[in-house]
Amino acid sequence: MPNLTVALDAMGGDFGPRVTVPAAVQALSHFPELKVILTGDQTTITELLSSLGYQPNTRLVVKHSDRVISNSEKPSLALRHSDGTSMSLAIDAVAKGEADACVSGGNTGALMALSRFKLKLLPGIERPALISALPTVSGAQTWMLDLGANVSSDADSLFQFAVMGSALAEQYLQCPPRVAILNIGAEEIKGNDLVKRCAEMLSQTNSVNFVGYIEGNQLLADVADVVVCDGFVGNICLKACEGTAQIFIDKLRSSMIAMSIKGWIARKLFSGLFNDLKTLNPDQYNGASLLGLRGIVIKSHGSADVDALVNAIGEALHEVKRQVPSRISDRLEAVLLERHY
Amino acid sequence: MPNLTVALDAMGGDFGPRVTVPAAVQALSHFPELKVILTGDQTTITELLSSLGYQPNTRLVVKHSDRVISNSEKPSLALRHSDGTSMSLAIDAVAKGEADACVSGGNTGALMALSRFKLKLLPGIERPALISALPTVSGAQTWMLDLGANVSSDADSLFQFAVMGSALAEQYLQCPPRVAILNIGAEEIKGNDLVKRCAEMLSQTNSVNFVGYIEGNQLLADVADVVVCDGFVGNICLKACEGTAQIFIDKLRSSMIAMSIKGWIARKLFSGLFNDLKTLNPDQYNGASLLGLRGIVIKSHGSADVDALVNAIGEALHEVKRQVPSRISDRLEAVLLERHY
Repeated sequence: MPNLTVALDAMGGDFGPRVTVPAAVQALSHFPELKVILTGDQTTITELLSSLGYQPNTRLVVKHSDRVISNSEKPSLALRHSDGTSMSLAIDAVAKGEADACVSGGNTGALMALSRFKLKLLPGIERPALISALPTVSGAQTWMLDLGANVSSDADSLFQFAVMGSALAEQYLQCPPRVAILNIGAEEIKGNDLVKRCAEMLSQTNSVNFVGYIEGNQLLADVADVVVCDGFVGNICLKACEGTAQIFIDKLRSSMIAMSIKGWIARKLFSGLFNDLKTLNPDQYNGASLLGLRGIVIKSHGSADVDALVNAIGEALHEVKRQVPSRISDRLEAVLLERHY
Repeated sequence: MPNLTVALDAMGGDFGPRVTVPAAVQALSHFPELKVILTGDQTTITELLSSLGYQPNTRLVVKHSDRVISNSEKPSLALRHSDGTSMSLAIDAVAKGEADACVSGGNTGALMALSRFKLKLLPGIERPALISALPTVSGAQTWMLDLGANVSSDADSLFQFAVMGSALAEQYLQCPPRVAILNIGAEEIKGNDLVKRCAEMLSQTNSVNFVGYIEGNQLLADVADVVVCDGFVGNICLKACEGTAQIFIDKLRSSMIAMSIKGWIARKLFSGLFNDLKTLNPDQYNGASLLGLRGIVIKSHGSADVDALVNAIGEALHEVKRQVPSRISDRLEAVLLERHY
């Protein structure tokens, strides 16, 4: 029975409704429990829906908006002029309780500013953080945050990121996640003041299973379940992994094409390896969550295709079912209590 | 005629003399212009030399030291207790004019602190920076700095890094290098105060060909010749690229092994691709330079093998021939003049 509602910003992302509309339709057939509210230009959306042989119904509702927040808009400006935009309507749906989660591929800064303003932060949280799962060599996932919700952070924020990331990962792992701080060396003396202060705070709490520092080359090595860093470092580092992975995959793909003239053997040999390698590309994990809010907001890659956006919607459903915001809230309360007594 | 002398810290690196001694011998046969001063335990070194059928001579001199700076030692402590260590003797050789450059695979922080103390900074430079060349998809190199000489930087330092990196790259490219700042987005509004202030300074100088921001996924895409960032971000980001590349190469290697049972065709098909991919691993470029000093100091990877250490010695010779410190000095003077008038 469809009982979980996701509000999808139909105009967000590099391709807008051309991707979001088919993704909504595909998600509805994929997740029987799902209802979708599409926010955006009604004419465009209904035209695209009917070209797919689909019509708005009780499981797919369109909320009209004729305004879009552009990717180049500053968050502060977007916040002032957000009324009636597709992104704003999608977040409003969560704030009003009409939707259980919101998904958008639009301007990240604006999504964060608007979510923070409309949904409010959880008690004890000063800044939200973007978190995403990365693939690892072992096949397990590692969650990394902050991936760019903030361009700078203090040690208190980093500590809160650790608590939030741990609470999220635990919903998947069902055991206390190993939490590490990303640093320029594994030894205690290494790093800047920010990571050293955060490490000290994490060492003193029982609420987080802190395993120390890890270096950039260990990110995909499954040595931690949650990796904490500031948003500037996290964003650059994740994109560096994605860029390197993409170059390797491209090289492999062009070799496959070049070798196809040598027959089907080469293609067959390569395809298994190719699929193996693709699973190591962090880019495949679409759907970063904005943690720390009193509601569920998922940021999809701007360049996400239909399948990737369906993944992001799936991630939203996961978090709704696991009641992630209240799990984080519980964990924060435990940490605060621990500090008091 | 051997006329360029490199002082090599024989005890530095994870493997000490077992790698440094054969590397010195190999470098001497590789570079006819090279002389080497090996600093470290005389007995161990001469024993290893004779096991290679080699003896100290006019091209290979041993300077005895029975002390080593450990990898876990804090730079401040290393500085106070450095007298007579192998690293200290190697840097002293440059300071006294007995060597043209120094190469060490030892403790990076200690190497920087000692080099700075003994060789002094160039006028106009507040902090040295670690720079290294990275491979790119096009086959060209991109120089990246700072890779971890500093755990934090201000905009002035970042600006100086840009000037130094540009001066170094120009010696290889023979044209004004494209200089970019590593950031979380390409748009002007993106980033933290540090990169924004540095971008403003670079936009106002004619001495650097500033091309704007690049993101982490563009690092190996040959969109800039010099990429500037603070040492914390640079170190983590480079290691993230290396880690991702290594995982892909390992996966490919294990596929090759698994497929060898299917015959030599698979091996033959793979070997070309494997070599192609290896050239995309930033780890292959051993020998990061410490720029900003009145002398040439090259940091080799701690885990470098003989070939990698020979590369680092080769990098030292390149810089000696190109008189890198005085090129940087000239460029800095030009920038200072430009600001005055």
